[in-house]
Amino acid sequence: MAGNVFGELFRVTTFGESHGAGLGCVIDGCPAGFPLTVEDIAAELRRRRPGAGGPSTSRAEADGPEILSGVFEGKTLGSPVAILVRNTNQRSGDYDNLKDVYRPGHADWTWEAKYGFRDHRGGGRSSARETLGRVAAGAVAKKFLAAAGIEIRAWTSAAAGIAVPGPADRGFDWNEIEQNPLRIPHREIAQQALEKLEAIRSEGDSAGCAVSCRVTNLPPGLGEPVFDKLDARLAAAMLSLGAAKGIEFGAGFSAASGLGSELNDCPVPAPDLPPAFIPLPPNVPQVRWTGNNAGGVLGGISNGMPLEFTVVFKPVPSISKKQQTVDRSGTVQELVIQGRHDACIAPRAVPVVEAMAALVIADLLLLQRAARI
Amino acid sequence: MAGNVFGELFRVTTFGESHGAGLGCVIDGCPAGFPLTVEDIAAELRRRRPGAGGPSTSRAEADGPEILSGVFEGKTLGSPVAILVRNTNQRSGDYDNLKDVYRPGHADWTWEAKYGFRDHRGGGRSSARETLGRVAAGAVAKKFLAAAGIEIRAWTSAAAGIAVPGPADRGFDWNEIEQNPLRIPHREIAQQALEKLEAIRSEGDSAGCAVSCRVTNLPPGLGEPVFDKLDARLAAAMLSLGAAKGIEFGAGFSAASGLGSELNDCPVPAPDLPPAFIPLPPNVPQVRWTGNNAGGVLGGISNGMPLEFTVVFKPVPSISKKQQTVDRSGTVQELVIQGRHDACIAPRAVPVVEAMAALVIADLLLLQRAARI
Amino acid sequence: MAGNVFGELFRVTTFGESHGAGLGCVIDGCPAGFPLTVEDIAAELRRRRPGAGGPSTSRAEADGPEILSGVFEGKTLGSPVAILVRNTNQRSGDYDNLKDVYRPGHADWTWEAKYGFRDHRGGGRSSARETLGRVAAGAVAKKFLAAAGIEIRAWTSAAAGIAVPGPADRGFDWNEIEQNPLRIPHREIAQQALEKLEAIRSEGDSAGCAVSCRVTNLPPGLGEPVFDKLDARLAAAMLSLGAAKGIEFGAGFSAASGLGSELNDCPVPAPDLPPAFIPLPPNVPQVRWTGNNAGGVLGGISNGMPLEFTVVFKPVPSISKKQQTVDRSGTVQELVIQGRHDACIAPRAVPVVEAMAALVIADLLLLQRAARI
Amino acid sequence: MAGNVFGELFRVTTFGESHGAGLGCVIDGCPAGFPLTVEDIAAELRRRRPGAGGPSTSRAEADGPEILSGVFEGKTLGSPVAILVRNTNQRSGDYDNLKDVYRPGHADWTWEAKYGFRDHRGGGRSSARETLGRVAAGAVAKKFLAAAGIEIRAWTSAAAGIAVPGPADRGFDWNEIEQNPLRIPHREIAQQALEKLEAIRSEGDSAGCAVSCRVTNLPPGLGEPVFDKLDARLAAAMLSLGAAKGIEFGAGFSAASGLGSELNDCPVPAPDLPPAFIPLPPNVPQVRWTGNNAGGVLGGISNGMPLEFTVVFKPVPSISKKQQTVDRSGTVQELVIQGRHDACIAPRAVPVVEAMAALVIADLLLLQRAARI
Repeated sequence: MAGNVFGELFRVTTFGESHGAGLGCVIDGCPAGFPLTVEDIAAELRRRRPGAGGPSTSRAEADGPEILSGVFEGKTLGSPVAILVRNTNQRSGDYDNLKDVYRPGHADWTWEAKYGFRDHRGGGRSSARETLGRVAAGAVAKKFLAAAGIEIRAWTSAAAGIAVPGPADRGFDWNEIEQNPLRIPHREIAQQALEKLEAIRSEGDSAGCAVSCRVTNLPPGLGEPVFDKLDARLAAAMLSLGAAKGIEFGAGFSAASGLGSELNDCPVPAPDLPPAFIPLPPNVPQVRWTGNNAGGVLGGISNGMPLEFTVVFKPVPSISKKQQTVDRSGTVQELVIQGRHDACIAPRAVPVVEAMAALVIADLLLLQRAARI
Repeated sequence: MAGNVFGELFRVTTFGESHGAGLGCVIDGCPAGFPLTVEDIAAELRRRRPGAGGPSTSRAEADGPEILSGVFEGKTLGSPVAILVRNTNQRSGDYDNLKDVYRPGHADWTWEAKYGFRDHRGGGRSSARETLGRVAAGAVAKKFLAAAGIEIRAWTSAAAGIAVPGPADRGFDWNEIEQNPLRIPHREIAQQALEKLEAIRSEGDSAGCAVSCRVTNLPPGLGEPVFDKLDARLAAAMLSLGAAKGIEFGAGFSAASGLGSELNDCPVPAPDLPPAFIPLPPNVPQVRWTGNNAGGVLGGISNGMPLEFTVVFKPVPSISKKQQTVDRSGTVQELVIQGRHDACIAPRAVPVVEAMAALVIADLLLLQRAARI
Repeated sequence: MAGNVFGELFRVTTFGESHGAGLGCVIDGCPAGFPLTVEDIAAELRRRRPGAGGPSTSRAEADGPEILSGVFEGKTLGSPVAILVRNTNQRSGDYDNLKDVYRPGHADWTWEAKYGFRDHRGGGRSSARETLGRVAAGAVAKKFLAAAGIEIRAWTSAAAGIAVPGPADRGFDWNEIEQNPLRIPHREIAQQALEKLEAIRSEGDSAGCAVSCRVTNLPPGLGEPVFDKLDARLAAAMLSLGAAKGIEFGAGFSAASGLGSELNDCPVPAPDLPPAFIPLPPNVPQVRWTGNNAGGVLGGISNGMPLEFTVVFKPVPSISKKQQTVDRSGTVQELVIQGRHDACIAPRAVPVVEAMAALVIADLLLLQRAARI
Repeated sequence: MAGNVFGELFRVTTFGESHGAGLGCVIDGCPAGFPLTVEDIAAELRRRRPGAGGPSTSRAEADGPEILSGVFEGKTLGSPVAILVRNTNQRSGDYDNLKDVYRPGHADWTWEAKYGFRDHRGGGRSSARETLGRVAAGAVAKKFLAAAGIEIRAWTSAAAGIAVPGPADRGFDWNEIEQNPLRIPHREIAQQALEKLEAIRSEGDSAGCAVSCRVTNLPPGLGEPVFDKLDARLAAAMLSLGAAKGIEFGAGFSAASGLGSELNDCPVPAPDLPPAFIPLPPNVPQVRWTGNNAGGVLGGISNGMPLEFTVVFKPVPSISKKQQTVDRSGTVQELVIQGRHDACIAPRAVPVVEAMAALVIADLLLLQRAARI
């Protein structure tokens, strides 16, 4: 397949170019019988839109989704859930000057190297707008997972070189995440980062960032050993985001300098835990763990602790500083990218990271039903 | 699928438990017509074995592979290439004391949470020995890629907290990699790390590490946009290794604190480049790039620069220091793991990282043939 | 996956219920660079619509398709081709009396047995209208295959017990197929069948039929040995049509009473054949065959002869004769299905059979590019 | 993929050439926790071997299987079940005279057209011996299905032009099937067919045949609507057998001349049916059907009636009558195939048909667990 399909049982196909007729997704394998409304999807799409005051692109779009199929009388049918978001306010003419030139840091040249031909308007299929279909599908997955009690929350954990405290640190505030335009869970740090980003943008530049994610109430046993480990699937999901340059789970890169005796989380009996959505086999004791260096996954299988990972994103490559590049004829060109672009994608990446996590987990949850006779 | 199948067109299924009859792989989609010998596979399997003097487990096994099918008169047939390596010298009795106890940092408890039942002997399918099937399949992929001029090389880039210079740094020596038991491309640093690891092991402990990989001569255009990006596939491949806790490409995690103007690699005309194995479309100019912060991949598609990434591994969880754990009855137990284990998996991870990279690239190379009419 | 995805490399997902917002498809893996217009798709959809004077349902719908993505400046981009056809003129209220009753011969009860819930309006996803997404995708595949010189033609080969001469028989007329409402390639027989069908319908009944298909100019070598044989894939494709009850290739069921010496087609040298779209390997001689009992496929691989198969369809289950059935409460009900339904689906099945054949062949054509180094 | 993988959740990869080191299979997705022994597999492989007195090839092989992985202490682990059968008594030299010649009715030429290269010894991967891996995997599936109460039985329903009564006909005897070398469920007819086949073989010829199959106790709801219908999957499975030329379900080809009023099976309440292995949703009434023209499948989903289908096979193409063919140089050659070959493959096809049915059903059974929340 050509890479626009994701998942095995909760299988999502996305489609659409930035300035074509529309974008969307089709979910094959969405289980029958749970309630789903357009508003479930619209709410997530709104989170993906540029914030009013935030350091994001000002392209204003309604992004109003339409459910084309798969839902009847407010419930999923078991048939494919197709969702469409029309492109409006496109102004493709804005991109005419980019038609024959390859923007640094973008997929312009590599797309042509692959296909010999591209839609230059806003990056076509390589636009960040492509994530719209992911967020729509993720909204459905989230609704499905919510019924299983699983909650997925992401936040901006670094922006423009400013680190953000983690959930275990003092000052971290879950409620703050959706209260500031950067989705940083700490009001003062958010303000500080906002100011730094404005300065960077005023110079025509952009900044890198990181997004962290925590999934709670995940039943133990999710993830397929060997190639389709829970963390392997999540790594693929996150690195499939255009600007992602890395991912780490639990102790992550710090594990390279740690010792086994420090990093092994140890199990302790936990007979009073409530039963998981997919219950443990009868002969297996319930446990908690003394720490979470594993990030909630052991041998690729969820261990009942919160799943924790961080994704790093490069700065938005569209900058208005002058850059040197090449055009289709192979001639050197100077390039100044016009228009208003995100200085930092972290806040808009937050709902996308959640969506991709939801897709991975929904898929593995369904797969887990086939593990035992 | 239950996670023992990897790839779409160069599709590998692996099988086998640490102490069962044997391990191996079947490759469906191996193209017909290239030469392949048992020695091609045996050579890679030898690289995966514990080194004589290195800080690795002393389990001595022949690991002699047998090609069961798919090769005739020294050439691949197009039919499945099945490879088997018998387990010998198993001494499963050594593991009897671990039968009812869950080792910290291992998949013992999570495997049972998933399946309700496990092969406790050496971790069963969750053993590091599982990578044997990957290395066998990777050896075939490497042979195929070699015909396309593609070279994959990995090395230990950190061990026990000791950093190792990169290919661009002074002192890095490609020829040194296979000359020391840690596969560190710098003789003095290798010696230093070896001593530190021996000290750690003598205390019954283990240490984390990192492995870096560079792939050269990759044709531009590999990788499928959106979900099956080259980096997404590699991330899945690497995080599917039991002890991996993270991956980064090019600038990686440092990108979180960088600026767009620093990190954008810019294209420059390169009309004299030799044609790639899969040639560029006629209307697309050949380019080089001013840097490689991208790590060789833009928008998920190879850009002609070396592909560069680093994988971090946690310390080997089998340590002989006393740990607290739980047994199958839910009772707390003290555990001291006997036997000689790797203090650091880096040197043995090197050929496995190469193998997984080869599998990803072989698959995407075949997929690329379907991209244009 | 839940069965709404077809193919590996030319991968089609269809969606939509009979009386929902719309139906359509997304093609992932459509190669870049060939011309595609809305009219290419509209033309095939028109062939699928009920004929003006023919024995088909009178539901009048525009079925005007919209290409949502994947095409730019008249050429395919390599990105997903999404096509949407809105449902109009739905009159779902017509189906209210069928809400709680299970129609014989339909999937009403089995759908509920599977999902616990159904869209009763016109059969929902189990409606024959579901084939619309297939025909739209097939139109794209046909356009792609036309560039490779491959032609696919189907016709009604039996209807209401009336047999139709085959291509080798006297009276068979390729040009007649699209000239009569039954798509029977023989004018007199078509007239005769039309009269018989009108009589059957006037009694509130319906009739079975068969559709035959021939594909010419298929390059030798298509089809994957073992499970994904050309004929296996076509069999799956055709039996995935709701009313299909069987398929046969070449000599088909008559082979059960034939002898090897009668049925073996023998190769003869054919050095002057023009080269195929995917050329033979240099060392393999060109051949013709003395007959085509094989139907164009040997060992699951195309042999260069026309591909020939026949699909049988049961009578349309919606009849206005009184039938006994069961309602949701488990009570016996008498049922008379109102409305105007096709008496025989053959003419509308013709473009659907062609579409499915096109999807199979497009997929296998792309796969074949990966067979040799 | 290149066609040696079958199924989605109960995913089987087979490997091996007729005269290579061995053949076998790997099952990924075999659920954990059911008992499996080598004898379960050996028993099915014995059924596939040529009968002592029957009209089959005399190649005598032990076909003793070895379970390489996936079973521990007599139970499945959830990890891949790999099974190997060594080739012995190969006498590949017997095939030297066929090295450069293309046998009519075989895949010799088409395999070379595809791959440019073949293993000429006994047909290599295109040998009927390839089904050995299928039967081994099918034996595991059968064991799994037996735990769900599902029974699969096939028999020879036509041979050499002699028709055999069906299960509803007088004289059909289930117990007779395994009692005569042709697996015909009627002793006198079996004797008659045996004599006719001996006469055919004595003239150096071979004969076509048909195999029918019935699956009982299948839970309603199996099969995925649209492309992965139960009958579509079975059609693919059966047409993937080398000599198969067609398949029909229930009324099959006779449906082409039937009426809707004759062929619609009608549901009747059946409140006393025992609950199925996968129970009906609570709101769906239990039903029986007035007939089984549907062959147990409606809209691609099992309806609770026995699943019934028939597969037709062409005569074995290896005949000792003189035939004309072509050699690798493109020269006409006369060919007389030596050795003792099956005159009719029906009896050996019986366990293969059962195996393929078991693989399809096991897969769909696991998939069905994901259909509802």
